[in-house]
Amino acid sequence: VIGVGLIGGSLARALRAAGVCDEVIGCGRGEANLKRAQDLGVIDRYERDPGRAVEGADMVVLCVPLGAMYGILTRIAGHLSADAVVTDAGSVKGCVVEDVRRAFNAVPANFVPAHPIAGTEKSGVEASFAELFRDHMVILTPLRETASEASQRVSTMWKATGARIVNMEVEHHDQVLAATSHLPHLLAFSLVDTLARMGDREEIFRYAAGGFRDFTRVASSDPQMWHDICVANREPLLEVLQRFRDRLDDLADALNQNDGGTLLQTFGNAKRARDTLYQE
Amino acid sequence: VIGVGLIGGSLARALRAAGVCDEVIGCGRGEANLKRAQDLGVIDRYERDPGRAVEGADMVVLCVPLGAMYGILTRIAGHLSADAVVTDAGSVKGCVVEDVRRAFNAVPANFVPAHPIAGTEKSGVEASFAELFRDHMVILTPLRETASEASQRVSTMWKATGARIVNMEVEHHDQVLAATSHLPHLLAFSLVDTLARMGDREEIFRYAAGGFRDFTRVASSDPQMWHDICVANREPLLEVLQRFRDRLDDLADALNQNDGGTLLQTFGNAKRARDTLYQE
Repeated sequence: VIGVGLIGGSLARALRAAGVCDEVIGCGRGEANLKRAQDLGVIDRYERDPGRAVEGADMVVLCVPLGAMYGILTRIAGHLSADAVVTDAGSVKGCVVEDVRRAFNAVPANFVPAHPIAGTEKSGVEASFAELFRDHMVILTPLRETASEASQRVSTMWKATGARIVNMEVEHHDQVLAATSHLPHLLAFSLVDTLARMGDREEIFRYAAGGFRDFTRVASSDPQMWHDICVANREPLLEVLQRFRDRLDDLADALNQNDGGTLLQTFGNAKRARDTLYQE
Repeated sequence: VIGVGLIGGSLARALRAAGVCDEVIGCGRGEANLKRAQDLGVIDRYERDPGRAVEGADMVVLCVPLGAMYGILTRIAGHLSADAVVTDAGSVKGCVVEDVRRAFNAVPANFVPAHPIAGTEKSGVEASFAELFRDHMVILTPLRETASEASQRVSTMWKATGARIVNMEVEHHDQVLAATSHLPHLLAFSLVDTLARMGDREEIFRYAAGGFRDFTRVASSDPQMWHDICVANREPLLEVLQRFRDRLDDLADALNQNDGGTLLQTFGNAKRARDTLYQE
């Protein structure tokens, strides 16, 4: 497991809890974090060097921020066992595939792009827990080049964490996630930033109700990670952001012109869609 | 209690639980809902006619949608006891004060505008519970005309529910709430509506993660109520909405121009502000 944070740590915990691993080796930039992961019983041992970490491994999972993928890939190339399967947990799949292509000069048959649809606004191995992926989806986006046996092994690994497996095209994955994950994060960050810049910010935040807490929860997510995601998924994100801005402009116009009908229709449409999605 | 829904019902339950009321009389448009409230033990009895409902009452609390305030006020005028205190639970205060001024030709000394900062995305008396206001704030916006004894009685009532009392100017209340409550609701409704209009809406919603659920929770709120709030608080809402749109335009430009620094700075600023607000 390269990158032992919330996702990598939770995966390691889940696999150990399921008893499907002989040994989990952690790797990462910060030794203090790796020591902590070992002390917490998340990993058996660690290596600082990615090349050494993957030697002899039969499964390599990259759980680093998207901006760090390419560097790690170049450092593990040449150290992998012949039958090692390589997969990742990145929130954008197009850029990871591109990084793999660049680092290996072609996409190896044993590389399986993957994305567990799970997480919290917390970061780091301390926030990791074995049940994070239970009943969540893991999207695999195998390519033409991908060996079905490799996909099968990644599938089996994630199923051991309690997750359900879904297959999808790379491009479709990046569009769907731009809409339901990347855009909401961008909006939450942007709203909190907007209010924080207002003169009476403390006064404003003091009277925030419960809805504000939930609405802005994702704005406590790791800024570097979300910077990487937005940059890596620029095109699909800009496209859905434009759709949103057009609708918001319509709402602002309606409000400006006292056109209550448009507001009511929009709010009603949204409520129906959300209530259908979550029957709570 | 005129309007026995989530707010009115929870207030009635809390006051009865605290044992500070001889009798709670409910009033509202739908008899089925009033019967239900009586069956649930939320109110002692009900009246369909607002004029009859307030006769002999020493405290009248208007918990109806903002769009219904004026009509109710005209129907209770002339039926109030001389020492009856009238207050409300509306999410916008300027419009309620205006409605009162119109209905009574002046703001009576025994009228106290108020706003409990509490609620859920649910509606109706079934969703009400006595603890809704515990440790939440209730903002009072007394006017020059307001008798301090009337303010004191409304204060005492809300304290019995476990709430804390804050005093504020009407205009300031409406600006602060536009930023932390009305704008987030508008954005959540707008986002869900935007995605619901996309061709592959079911496909899109299917892969929504936990963050999306929290982010869009407020989009399950009552559309009519939020229509009323947005229209009633049009000017302050348009102002903060414009600030937000300007910042979002900046972010879109930054993303377009691959200016990662601006994204990172915005996300970092937002995370710091939110983490300061909620030390969870």
